[in-house]
Amino acid sequence: MRLTSRRLADGREILFFDRDEAPERVSEDRRDLAPVRTTSEIRYDVLADEWVAVTAHRQTRTHLPPADECPLCPSTPAFLTEIPEPDYDVVVFENRFPSFATTVPDVSGDAGDPLFARRPARGRCEVVCFSSDHSGSFADLPVEHARLVVDAWAQRTQALSALDEVEQVFCFENRGPEIGVTLHHPHGQIYAYPFVTPMTRRMLDSARRHRERTGGNLFAEVLAAELRAQTRVVWQSTHWAGFVPAAARWPVEVHLYPRRQVADLSELDDAERDDLAASYVQVLRGLDALFGVPLPYIAGWYQAPVRGDRDLAWLHLRLVSIRRAPDKLKYLAGSESAMGAFINDITPEDMAGRVRAAIGSTPLG
Amino acid sequence: MRLTSRRLADGREILFFDRDEAPERVSEDRRDLAPVRTTSEIRYDVLADEWVAVTAHRQTRTHLPPADECPLCPSTPAFLTEIPEPDYDVVVFENRFPSFATTVPDVSGDAGDPLFARRPARGRCEVVCFSSDHSGSFADLPVEHARLVVDAWAQRTQALSALDEVEQVFCFENRGPEIGVTLHHPHGQIYAYPFVTPMTRRMLDSARRHRERTGGNLFAEVLAAELRAQTRVVWQSTHWAGFVPAAARWPVEVHLYPRRQVADLSELDDAERDDLAASYVQVLRGLDALFGVPLPYIAGWYQAPVRGDRDLAWLHLRLVSIRRAPDKLKYLAGSESAMGAFINDITPEDMAGRVRAAIGSTPLG
Repeated sequence: MRLTSRRLADGREILFFDRDEAPERVSEDRRDLAPVRTTSEIRYDVLADEWVAVTAHRQTRTHLPPADECPLCPSTPAFLTEIPEPDYDVVVFENRFPSFATTVPDVSGDAGDPLFARRPARGRCEVVCFSSDHSGSFADLPVEHARLVVDAWAQRTQALSALDEVEQVFCFENRGPEIGVTLHHPHGQIYAYPFVTPMTRRMLDSARRHRERTGGNLFAEVLAAELRAQTRVVWQSTHWAGFVPAAARWPVEVHLYPRRQVADLSELDDAERDDLAASYVQVLRGLDALFGVPLPYIAGWYQAPVRGDRDLAWLHLRLVSIRRAPDKLKYLAGSESAMGAFINDITPEDMAGRVRAAIGSTPLG
Repeated sequence: MRLTSRRLADGREILFFDRDEAPERVSEDRRDLAPVRTTSEIRYDVLADEWVAVTAHRQTRTHLPPADECPLCPSTPAFLTEIPEPDYDVVVFENRFPSFATTVPDVSGDAGDPLFARRPARGRCEVVCFSSDHSGSFADLPVEHARLVVDAWAQRTQALSALDEVEQVFCFENRGPEIGVTLHHPHGQIYAYPFVTPMTRRMLDSARRHRERTGGNLFAEVLAAELRAQTRVVWQSTHWAGFVPAAARWPVEVHLYPRRQVADLSELDDAERDDLAASYVQVLRGLDALFGVPLPYIAGWYQAPVRGDRDLAWLHLRLVSIRRAPDKLKYLAGSESAMGAFINDITPEDMAGRVRAAIGSTPLG
């Protein structure tokens, strides 16, 4: 893998993750772009004990452009995109409409009242283009190419963790118009948050209580128990195991764990990364076969906070989908959205059987 | 208000909340209905420390029927519905496809492993028909009629709280196909949960810590601070106050508090109920005017648990919407759904100003 760091016309960083034999990435961004001004802030919800980001400048972001105006395709003489090169393998760049940025100015206003605590939303948001092929998807990537994406995630996790403002790095992919994806080009995102996210805090609180009570690692015990039960396991390879969790919230939900405890993607070794690339592509192909239509999904990497609790955490991927039938979606309505109480219409054991069968029906070529 | 309790053909309870002058509700349900069999369970997510309901029998529930087959309209000789009467004011009945029911049998299977704890999903789910008019909405109700709905919510909260299985009662309305509503007839639901919901637990944990530290009630202080700041207040009447919270998660989010601390709807007195009916209809009319299209929303009553923490809690309504522009929706994608970290594209102060203006432009006739 060869890494090249460049700058876009407005000063944002762009990083090329290339096969060793790829051409050098030396093209200039010839667009006339105004500098990005990001004024977002995070506000503390004193009742829920959680931070919320308020990012008023993002309302104007790009929304489902036609394919010949895709900002994530390589540039052509006729249309200059976010990527100045005529081709690329995997590319990462700072989001032009970020929720978090290192350049956010100080907060003004009633920040003094502890009931209404506010802070600048400092951090970083990046876009990860998985491939230059506009019409592809992650499931279509050759395994060696998927490995480049794994390396990009790992490198970005390490680099973003080194920023003073950042407390947690989240690599994820939103896929499908059903969940509001505004660009069809296969891509993911990375959010480097200035706080430990609510879901991560809850899981680490549980893991801490469990360790205090029993001395054990809760994630290790859940993984071992799933492998023992086997009823919900959907994937097993040398270094990875996938299962539908016993208390799945979503109609489709798959968790993919490395068999070895690591805190984040940067700690995976070469063999684990190779295995991940192959395993993930295989699981994704199976999931696309599940309902006979491409699965809308949210796939996200649960990583340890940058500072602290790194021994309590256990890196894993969670892929969830709102599709519950070929023609039906699950909506988060009153019980889920207001009360946080999820209702799942499909048993995890039933879904695990269907996912296993779907993966078995789509072997890697 | 006159309350009549009857039974449907399959044994489910139906309750009529009528004006005093309404005809007696004595019609028999003449449908041939098989008894409802509910086998749902709740499963403990040991990592998130939350219960999730698994309700496999609900996949076949009624999905957007044509208007002349609406199960929530009054019955006609040609079409028998869930309501055997030729008309009604406000009616509540047990859901035929419930997530929770008192009749759920014991759980079998691997319920013994503490990592996979499971319990029968005992509780109750009810449907609340706001009006017999299929094409109306809550915002269209005359205030006296809305008061009947308030009385129905209050009576059901009291009655369901008396069930041994029930730990929290949640009255809510999902409105609009944008959030997956499967029946257009104006109606809400009531979930009587066998656990205290995750969101309520988090808020009460914060309130408990605040009381231990300061002796004060956190909800009282938030309400007082919003009224002092005024920048986000959208409604004030004798007994109620409404505001967009400082850390709003959703593009549209309005919290409506009684000025007096009460634990749940059943504790509201007559004057507070009258004021609520008028205030809520007025706020809803304003919200429908906000984008020039009927607002899809989730409106839910945050009530104290049945047992315990009733002095810490403060009854309030939260209405949230995923609409962020006349032609754009907010989707809960990676950051919100996976990490619980909300990103709001509209500042709460800006939205409060727009809601205030919209309410001012739609005075009650």
